[in-house]
Amino acid sequence: MSTFTVKAYGAESTTADLKEMNIERREPTPNDVEIEILYCGVCHSDLHTARNDWGGTIYPAVPGHEIIGRITKIGNEVTKFKVGDLAGVGCIVDSCGTCESCKHDLEQYCLNGFTGTYNGKDKHLGGHTFGGYSQKVVVDSDHVLRIPENLDLAAVAPLLCAGITTWSPLRHWNVGPGSKVAVIGLGGLGHMAIKLAKGLGAEVTLFSRTPGKTEDAKQLGADHVVISTEQAEMDSVKGKFDVIIDTVPYVHDVNPYITTLNISGTLVLVGYLGGLEPILQTVPMIMGRKSVAGSVIGGIAETQEMLDFCGKHNIVSEIEIIKMNEINEAYERMLKSDVRYRFVIDMQTL
Amino acid sequence: MSTFTVKAYGAESTTADLKEMNIERREPTPNDVEIEILYCGVCHSDLHTARNDWGGTIYPAVPGHEIIGRITKIGNEVTKFKVGDLAGVGCIVDSCGTCESCKHDLEQYCLNGFTGTYNGKDKHLGGHTFGGYSQKVVVDSDHVLRIPENLDLAAVAPLLCAGITTWSPLRHWNVGPGSKVAVIGLGGLGHMAIKLAKGLGAEVTLFSRTPGKTEDAKQLGADHVVISTEQAEMDSVKGKFDVIIDTVPYVHDVNPYITTLNISGTLVLVGYLGGLEPILQTVPMIMGRKSVAGSVIGGIAETQEMLDFCGKHNIVSEIEIIKMNEINEAYERMLKSDVRYRFVIDMQTL
Repeated sequence: MSTFTVKAYGAESTTADLKEMNIERREPTPNDVEIEILYCGVCHSDLHTARNDWGGTIYPAVPGHEIIGRITKIGNEVTKFKVGDLAGVGCIVDSCGTCESCKHDLEQYCLNGFTGTYNGKDKHLGGHTFGGYSQKVVVDSDHVLRIPENLDLAAVAPLLCAGITTWSPLRHWNVGPGSKVAVIGLGGLGHMAIKLAKGLGAEVTLFSRTPGKTEDAKQLGADHVVISTEQAEMDSVKGKFDVIIDTVPYVHDVNPYITTLNISGTLVLVGYLGGLEPILQTVPMIMGRKSVAGSVIGGIAETQEMLDFCGKHNIVSEIEIIKMNEINEAYERMLKSDVRYRFVIDMQTL
Repeated sequence: MSTFTVKAYGAESTTADLKEMNIERREPTPNDVEIEILYCGVCHSDLHTARNDWGGTIYPAVPGHEIIGRITKIGNEVTKFKVGDLAGVGCIVDSCGTCESCKHDLEQYCLNGFTGTYNGKDKHLGGHTFGGYSQKVVVDSDHVLRIPENLDLAAVAPLLCAGITTWSPLRHWNVGPGSKVAVIGLGGLGHMAIKLAKGLGAEVTLFSRTPGKTEDAKQLGADHVVISTEQAEMDSVKGKFDVIIDTVPYVHDVNPYITTLNISGTLVLVGYLGGLEPILQTVPMIMGRKSVAGSVIGGIAETQEMLDFCGKHNIVSEIEIIKMNEINEAYERMLKSDVRYRFVIDMQTL
């Protein structure tokens, strides 16, 4: 299969800083599009993969799955896009298309395993996939999103992961006008959860451990902020929420939040991969038909739905634009939560 | 308020055997019915309450919340029933009627606390309520169920608790034709979950720790039995179930069952009150949009729906009829799981 070389930015090993390197991209096959990357958001998963925090990273690792660009070439069977169109690529660049999940537009739960935008198994070239910290990417057009022309392109990038990760559970658990939604944690995911839940018509509350984020949260659209370390504040929202989007990425006690769920309410974990400690108590769940659930990103059709919704409601992420060579410093700042609320790389700087 | 005396069977203290005693019932108020009790099912909660296993038992304790009888007197505002009608009383004899739960026919989640059939706060006489181990009971007619005439009355009794406890989650999580349902544990609740899920048109699998229950389970309607201690059997149902009804009443590891849930599937705890140990792992939940939920009994309208369904589909509980003075022995046998699958007291023997 013929390929071409593009510049990229990646890690050569667990401990190495990211640096410039060359990678190969395939020439577009009949259903592919080639995208010149304009912006790429910086997700915590990028950092975890670059540093092999979850194990399984294959090096060199080129992260990036919040990709916005413009189409520069299309395969001869592509009908959805033309050269010059804006295009987005999220966390999924391929899926089997035939399993029950894929048949129901749930590519994120592809039973044969979707192909991740980076560190996935490259079906075309062998080896592993390289992400959006690069000049160009070539992707099957069925896994490419249309981008509303009216939005700030750099600020759209994080919608492809942080946006859809919170949109999907909001939609699956039927959030709309009249819903009472709470969001735990105000980071990349949390700030999008607030904006999207508000956009859907919900009354939105942020749970935060510190009072410092109140003003920001309200500017993002939160109606209320509850300081979760203050028992009186927690008591004041007992039994209130239909849906809680829990974006906290580290181990934390979910039991106090269960008490704030309404009858038949659901707490959805979208950020924490691990065991629930302290142990989950079943009595409050049983006595109120409450659920604890998990959710990961979203399907392609659902991502398009979200992007169209954001275009219509003028919703984008809050971002800080960085240059490509500032990525290592940005990772260090992310580890200190020193970002409001998402770094986006201007890919012209590569 | 005027009262009358009836014979009952109850415990005077935590350690006392149940024995005959007299209790007072109120004369029916305008919306009440007086019911002569014909049969009363024996629930594990009866035993736990009699022995104060959960704390909070008020003595003397007269258990029994699976009550079938015939109406002997009605208040002058009662229109739904007439003297001579069959009637059923389950776990709930009163609720506020005005909270959001009650307004939505979810009396089991009454935000002001429903009145339990026994050990509840008696709004009429003060003190606490006495259950169905007695000759008669007087209940607000809005909390009384109509009983299909075509069913074996003794075998209907357990529907009022074991039946509705499994019916409610099956309905809430939309079980119907095409659904794949699993039931964990084959006791009073489990055997009803099998019958009701099958009646609703689902493909039903029993999870059991021992092979000895396979024939029974299939006779009850199970399509498959999976021995949960055999890894190969567990692997064979990976990702299969839309809904799992977990009836196990003691601490147990739910993680292996989560892997048998289909994408977007839900495991519903209906039997275990305590903490989830070993700790619940979130990765399988997040990577498959899976939920762990709880559910308790059901509302009055839903209980009527279940009874009507059982009448139409000829579904009753599997029972062993005992005399009133055999109750202490029955409790000991229940502790050894030596009952297939529910004891029912012939109240004529009191």
